[in-house]
Order: sequence, then C-alpha cells, then structure tokens
Amino acid sequence: MKFHTKKKSKRSLKLIVLGGTTTVQKNMYVYEYGSDIVIFDCGIGFPNRELLGVDIVLPDFSYVLENIDKVKGIVITHGHEDHFGALPYLLEQVRIPIYSARLVSEFIKLKLKERNLLNGTSFNILDPDKGPIRLGDFSIDFFRINHSVPESLGYALKTPQGVVFHVPDYKFDWTPVMDKPFDIQKAVDLAKGGVLALCSDCLGARTDGFTSSEKDIQTTFDNYMFRTKGQVFITTLSSNISRIRMAVEASIKNGRKIVIGGRSMRNSVGVGKKLGYLPYSEEHFIPELQAKSFDQSKITYIVSGSFGQPESSLGRISRNCHKNIKIEENSLVIFSADPIPGVYDLVYDMIDSLTLLGAEVIYSDIQDNLHVSGHGSRGDHILLANLVKPKYHIPTGGTVSLMRAHSQNMQKIGVKEENILELLEGDMVTFKNGIAVKHKFLETKNVFIDNTGLNVVDPVVLRDRTALSQDGIFVAILKYDSEKKEFLNSVELVSRGFIYMKESRPLLKEAEKRILEVLKGTKKSKDWSKIKDVVEKTLFRFFLKKTGHTPLILPVIVEA
Amino acid sequence: MKFHTKKKSKRSLKLIVLGGTTTVQKNMYVYEYGSDIVIFDCGIGFPNRELLGVDIVLPDFSYVLENIDKVKGIVITHGHEDHFGALPYLLEQVRIPIYSARLVSEFIKLKLKERNLLNGTSFNILDPDKGPIRLGDFSIDFFRINHSVPESLGYALKTPQGVVFHVPDYKFDWTPVMDKPFDIQKAVDLAKGGVLALCSDCLGARTDGFTSSEKDIQTTFDNYMFRTKGQVFITTLSSNISRIRMAVEASIKNGRKIVIGGRSMRNSVGVGKKLGYLPYSEEHFIPELQAKSFDQSKITYIVSGSFGQPESSLGRISRNCHKNIKIEENSLVIFSADPIPGVYDLVYDMIDSLTLLGAEVIYSDIQDNLHVSGHGSRGDHILLANLVKPKYHIPTGGTVSLMRAHSQNMQKIGVKEENILELLEGDMVTFKNGIAVKHKFLETKNVFIDNTGLNVVDPVVLRDRTALSQDGIFVAILKYDSEKKEFLNSVELVSRGFIYMKESRPLLKEAEKRILEVLKGTKKSKDWSKIKDVVEKTLFRFFLKKTGHTPLILPVIVEA
Repeated sequence: MKFHTKKKSKRSLKLIVLGGTTTVQKNMYVYEYGSDIVIFDCGIGFPNRELLGVDIVLPDFSYVLENIDKVKGIVITHGHEDHFGALPYLLEQVRIPIYSARLVSEFIKLKLKERNLLNGTSFNILDPDKGPIRLGDFSIDFFRINHSVPESLGYALKTPQGVVFHVPDYKFDWTPVMDKPFDIQKAVDLAKGGVLALCSDCLGARTDGFTSSEKDIQTTFDNYMFRTKGQVFITTLSSNISRIRMAVEASIKNGRKIVIGGRSMRNSVGVGKKLGYLPYSEEHFIPELQAKSFDQSKITYIVSGSFGQPESSLGRISRNCHKNIKIEENSLVIFSADPIPGVYDLVYDMIDSLTLLGAEVIYSDIQDNLHVSGHGSRGDHILLANLVKPKYHIPTGGTVSLMRAHSQNMQKIGVKEENILELLEGDMVTFKNGIAVKHKFLETKNVFIDNTGLNVVDPVVLRDRTALSQDGIFVAILKYDSEKKEFLNSVELVSRGFIYMKESRPLLKEAEKRILEVLKGTKKSKDWSKIKDVVEKTLFRFFLKKTGHTPLILPVIVEA
Repeated sequence: MKFHTKKKSKRSLKLIVLGGTTTVQKNMYVYEYGSDIVIFDCGIGFPNRELLGVDIVLPDFSYVLENIDKVKGIVITHGHEDHFGALPYLLEQVRIPIYSARLVSEFIKLKLKERNLLNGTSFNILDPDKGPIRLGDFSIDFFRINHSVPESLGYALKTPQGVVFHVPDYKFDWTPVMDKPFDIQKAVDLAKGGVLALCSDCLGARTDGFTSSEKDIQTTFDNYMFRTKGQVFITTLSSNISRIRMAVEASIKNGRKIVIGGRSMRNSVGVGKKLGYLPYSEEHFIPELQAKSFDQSKITYIVSGSFGQPESSLGRISRNCHKNIKIEENSLVIFSADPIPGVYDLVYDMIDSLTLLGAEVIYSDIQDNLHVSGHGSRGDHILLANLVKPKYHIPTGGTVSLMRAHSQNMQKIGVKEENILELLEGDMVTFKNGIAVKHKFLETKNVFIDNTGLNVVDPVVLRDRTALSQDGIFVAILKYDSEKKEFLNSVELVSRGFIYMKESRPLLKEAEKRILEVLKGTKKSKDWSKIKDVVEKTLFRFFLKKTGHTPLILPVIVEA
C-alpha cells in the first residue's frame, strides 16, 4: 500500500473524537495536522432519562476553543441535528467558516437565524460535481452518498500522512427519490493510491443484507391514500424531505389536499420548496388554520411527532387537544419512521392513544414498507470497505456494542482485529508513516442545556434533582435568638415529595425532638456549618431507619 | 351453539377487569355470578418512568374488599410476579383461599414468608390430571398449557351462563424442556357444548407464525459452553426454570461448575431443586463466595439481571463492583431473554459496559436461538381460537394496540368485529343468555409502592417529585417579628436543583427585593396563607420571565 507522502514527514496526523463514536448522536470529530485543524460536524445529543430537566447535550468544545487559531473550517456532513445542531453554541463563542452542501446550509441558516448568529458567519457550498477544497495542509474532496436526507456527502481528506475517508450516516440507494445514487466511481477514484483509514457509520452493524431503497415506500403510501375513506395522517422525521415528497405525491394522485403540521415540518417543507425538492403547485396545500373547513376525507396531514414527542403536532392530536386538528371517523395514521432507543415507550403510548380515539394506526411492526432506514446494513458496510480498502477501520455513529459488532463483521471479511480502532469520546488516534496509535487524550465534559435552549444546567443541580426526584426534600428551619445567643426550643419543618405530611405527624414530632436534642448539645457553638452538618446526619439516619428513605435534607438557620 | 344452562337464568355473569388487559402486567380479573366471586390472578405492575420513586404498582383492590363476602377463592394461573406478586398486599388485608399448581404455590410461599403472611393462608393445589374444583356456583376445570415457567395452566369456568375459557400467557410447545405439551385434547373436551368467551393472551399478536419451542435453545447453549475459553455468564428471568435447566445441563456436559448469582435466582433454583425440576447432584454447584478460588474457565455463572436492572448481580458485575465476581479474560456473557418495553436502554447500557470490560456479549440481535418467547404468536392464537371456538373473544395481557392487532387477526379468520371485546381497566362485561354487553364500571386507582415494598406513595407526593425533578425547589423564608407585628426587612432564600446559586447572586437579590415589596404591601394582614400565596405567584412569574423555569416555590413564615 502506498500513501501520498512526499517523504517520511515528522508530524503525525491526529484524529480526536469529541463525540459520536458511541452515542449515535452528538457527532464532532477533529482532524489536526501541524498548525491546521479541520472539524467534521458539530451535533447535539439527546439526554438519557437520568439527565432531569436537560433538553439537549452539547459536545465539549474546550479543545476547539483552546486551539482556535489552528481551526481552518468546519465541515457539516449532512442536514441532521445530531451533526449540526450544536453549531449556534459554538459560533456564539467563536467564528469558524462553514463548509457544507447547499441543503445543509439552508437548514443551518434557519437555526442560526433564531439566535441572531447569521451575520458574520461564512458559508461555503460544497458541490459534489466539483471539489476538492483546500484548508491549510488538508485537501478535502467529497462524493455523493445516500441517507435519509438529500445532499449527504462522504469525504476524502488528503493529508501529508495519507488519505482518510470520513463517511458518516450512509447507505447505498440505487433508486433514491430525489437524490442521485451513491457516487461509487468517484469514491473509488479518490481511494486510488491507498487509503489510510475509513471512519464510517456502524449503526446498522447488526442488520443483515442491504438497506432497502427509499423508493420502496411510494407504493405503500399510494395504496393507503387510495383505500382510506377518511383523513390520512403521515408522520416522519421533518428532515426527511424525500419521504415528505412521496406523501405529497401519493396525496395529489388521490385527490387529497395537504396540510403540513408542526413548526419543524413547516420549516423543512419551506426549505424543500425553495430548493426545488417539492415542485408542486401551491393549490395542493392548505394552511393548518383552514383545514377544519375542508372535507376531511380529502386531506392528508403530514405532521411532526414520529418519535412520540408529547408536544409535537401528532402528540397533541393524540391527546385530542390540538387547536386545529381532530381525529375523525375512518381516519388512518401512518408512522413512517422507526423508534430509536429511548423513545419506544413514547411511540407506543402515542399509538395506543390514537387507537383509543378511533384511528387505525399503521406502523412497522404490523406493516412492511412503511419506513426504510437511512443507515446502511452489513451489506452496505462490506461494500464500502471493498470500495475503499482502507488500512484502518474506525466505526462511528453507533454504541460500544455496535462498534464491536462492526468490528466482528469486518474481521469476517479478513480485516485484522488490530486494524479496527474502537474509539471512545476523548480518544485520539495518531497516524504516522502509515501506523496508527490509539491514546486516551481528553477528559470531555458534556454541556447540558435546558428546554429554553439558553441555560447551561450545572452538574451539581442535576445531582440534586436526581435526589429530589426519588425521595423529595426535607427542610428544617432552626431559629436562633441572636440576643439570647441560643436556639429557640422549636423548629419549622417543611417537605415536598418526601412523605405525605398530613399522615406523618408522629414522624415529624419525633424528628423535631431529635433536632432539638442536637441543638441542645451544641449550645455554645456558633460554628453553623458544623451544626447544620450534625442536624443533616441525624435526620438522615433517623429517616432511613424509620422510612427506608433519605430525602435531600436542608437545614437552614434563621437569626431573629 | 348450546350452553350448559338448565333454564334461562335471571342473573348475569360478570367479568370485571381490575388490571391486565392493556398493561401487560398487573393482571387481576374478577368473575362474579350472584353471590359468588372468583378472582383470577393478583399481579404487580412495574412503574413507567413518570412514577418517580415508585417501585411497583398494585391493582385497585377496592371492589374485592367491598365484596369480600362473595369471594370464594383466588386462582393464580402461573408463577410470574405480574400474576401473583400483589398477593401479599391483598392478603395482609383479607384472607382468601389460594388455588394454583404446585410450583406456583412454592413461589407464592416464598413471597408470603418474607412478609410473615404464611400462617393462616390456605393453599389448594390444582393437578391438571384431576379437576374440576367447585367454588360457589362456579365449576373450574384446568388443562396444561406452555409458557416460560413450568406448570402453567389454562382454565375453563363453567357458569350457569355458559363456559368461559381463561387462558393467560401461553404458547403451544410440543417439545417443552421439562413440562408436558399443551393438553389440547382436554381443552377440546372442555369446550364441547360451546364456549361463551375466550379471555386469552394477545402479546404476540404482531408476530407471524408459531413461537418456537424452548428446546431449540439447548444446542446454542451447548455450543457456546464448548467453545468459550473463559467464564460463561448466562442471564435469564429467574422464574424460567427450564432455561436454567438447559444452562446447567450444557455446563455439566462441558465440565463446568455452576454458580447461581442473585437472590431471586437462588430462590428459584431452590424451588426447582425441591420439586425435582433440577435433578443434578450438588457437586456441580459452587457457592458464590467460593467461586473466586476456582478455575474461572471451568465456571458457568447463572445470574439475574436480564432486564438490565442496575442492582442485579449482572448489573454489579457490569460496573465491576460485584464483591465476589469479576469479568476475566475470554469471558462470554449470554443474554437469554429479550428486553421488554421500558428496559431497552438499560439492557443496551449493560451490554456496552460488559463489552468495555472485555467480555464478548451475545444477545438476540446478533445471534439466533438465544431466547424464545413464552408467549404465543399469531399462529398459536389462531390454533387456540379453533380449538375452543368461542362466541366472544377477549384479548388480555397486551396493550391497546396489541388488542387491536389481535382483533384484526381474529377478524381475518372470520370472527365478527362485534364479538371481540376490547376491555380497559375498570371495564365490565355482563353475559346473559349468550349475549355479552360491555360497560364502563369502575374508576380504578392504582396503588404505588416504594422500594421498601412497605410504603404507599401518595399521588400528591408524586406530583411534587415531578416538579422537583424538572426545576428543583426554591424556599423563601419570611421572618415575622411577633412583638413588632411586622415582617423583618430580610428574607432567607435557599434552593436545590433549580439554578446554580453561586452564579445567580443578582437573580437572588432581585427575588428578595420582589418578596420584600410584597410583604410591605400586606403589612397589616395576618392572613398568612394569602401572603404565602402572593409571594408564590410573584416568584413564579419572576422566575419564569428571568429564567424560563418554574421551580416548586415554597414560602415559609417563621415567627420570631
């Protein structure tokens, strides 16, 4: 294998993972060579259920901020929030030129506009019929790939240490609905001369065969639109413009008007229309506000909520509390998206609620060809590996067990185990003279953002919320008479979320007694933090013994 | 169709659902005729994630308690906690004779013993080679069925209004590991003369074909035991004695000693040994405490934790904090159980942790024949429907959407839609002269029990925990000088889980100012509940505006 290196260079190429190898979401990768850094993606993650009151999770930007002088640009690989959604939080701190396909730039602009960050941000459109671009010592070329959002690209980074292919979320689709197929000729061309490493999507590593084509869904939509006597509702991811296009087309064929419901869905359709992906006359669309007055049997509602989000359009419809839309007789709801880990329960709850309202609900468990994944399966992975033939494989966009499954798949086609690098967040790989070495490199601290999108949630606050959510809080107010220099012989006790206070008088009496004993014992002391500490420990032991529970205990001293 | 009625009787047969039709778990059904009630099952449910600090959910016993004079007995259909786990909570209030197969009675005894309820409880063993029993006007016969726990039975209730078949969790297994196959001859025999209704399991209504036999797993276990060079861990549901038996057998064949890990697993193995289901010499078993000193490559650990429970044996092993068991080189972990809704994330997190510790982890997504369901699929459902040929179908043990799927399956084989009764919790069906009528009957209130298993969690407390978990609490202590009869000009503010207080000094200053303004305005008033109310509302609006968040606000007035 030969690499494009003029001579054995001294510097190594670094790849640093800020997020995305094991969390599916929150993708952010840093490539560094000498005094040049190029970033790939800047995505948000969604919190697990332990992160109470957290709406989104950001990658740790510290390394980027500390090395901002080196950063030549950020490439956004495709138009999904887990690849670009954290950009506003980065760009409000530093300005970095953005490189992406046209559609992606439109999605990003919508996001930045909300935060008044549009001015001064430089957008550079990547056209897969052209290329490459040069960023410092990096030359970056790109080629069409397929995914569940159009204009997704794969990337070939030429560096003095060799060529690295960076191919996030992809599949091979030979009959995409509006895109062109994966450009395997260009990919092969860029791989000529040898590829050092392939960083690529492993999410489908446990699924056999090839992922189906987006096109396979059209017939299903057509049939349901034809045979349904009432309203049709279709929900999918709002970025999935090709799915929306098929729903629109099936509706028009069957004489149905289209209502777009939900802000994200309307934004997405707006971008789709602007870029020519939805070339349909406006007469086919009805504003949500006017939908009520039309014949419901002639309407298709395309709505957000495919992951069971309670506040989405479909969420409100399923609870029968949507202002403008109600489920009526003979209506059909189609879920054209499969739940991801973490939202199964929400989705099935929503299906149950819609069923109770009288709708017929169709979803992947009971009907084929309602959804195809945007992610390749084992067959796709093996094909890409053979097109690119890299020395090293770096699985991304999965979980620890999916990386391992991908590794086993690659070993089955002859890749050596030591040439598959399973990286965790904060890990770095250095490439030098064709040899890769893996290091633990950074301690990353994720940043938690609340539902306003503005405030950072402190880890201390989160820890308290966890305690509060399980056993509530118990506040003991100790009253200190500063003239007599002693504690009063009574305390105020209040609690929330602990035990039901009305039923616990004897317990409270006993708690008060214990506290007063403690206070007596510390008569002379004015070391309040110590007194509070003793009260807290006493109550902790007391409640644990009496109730089996340990609320968050908060002693407060009030001077009067 | 003929029913076993001597003449058109005046009384109707009632079936009241206290739980189990749409929650999978928490099964409890009441059959009532005249002055006789027979209860089927008394199971616990597991809380959804909104029920903070709740460990188990009990059905609403009110109707049973109010009609206790009529209750002739309670039949426990099989040995799973979602069918018998709530018995201690019922039996501590009233004594009711229990009817069940032998194995089930052993499981129940373990449970009652923990709560000192064994004395005075009457157990009546149901032997499927004998039968029927008579309870008031009910004659109850029973027949072998198959499920993931041995000795599961189906029931035929003969009543003056006709025969009802009650067949919870079942499948047809012609090669069960230790049980006998489903006794279809007896079932057909009991169905002769016509069946009024069939209440039966619909959990597999979305799965095609027939569920596989338990036996299919033996070869998989054998192969993995043979080829693994280090420890083998197998996790499954502790009640699944046949799965445990296969793991033990595969271990013995391959010269491995067996360690049973986890209390529930040890209990279950104890019952299995006692009843002859695990007829293996004690020399094959090693106590957990001694496992360390044995050659790890010659041990199989059979451990609890198949649903990802963090505090289970495997949970602690996966976090590397188990006292006696550590993952070593070349070890293999087999998940021989599939996650149910609500535990997907926990299971995959555990798989990831075990992978990071160096274990190879095998689970259904990547390997066939590791687990077969105990629940029948569409094929099983259709076979049972044809064996019994009931007039009415009542799906149980599913969800709203699974009931609907079952209904559609039954319609495909010719059952009329109006003869399929989809019941919700609290619904009643009355049967009279061969006609069933569905009613809304009870408003059920589920009872929530905390992790001590002893305390009821009040709904008010739950509501507070939900608020606390999202935005924390803000306590404002207002100091009242009872001599001067006025509020002091300072307040104490403390909070937990809200915002990070060190960073919010200006916000707190402003909040204090607002509170003092309110207090000034109410100078003369001693209507403290009104003052607290105004302070709460003022702070609510203030925080919402300034932070976008609304903590639980708790004003406390302290007299000094």
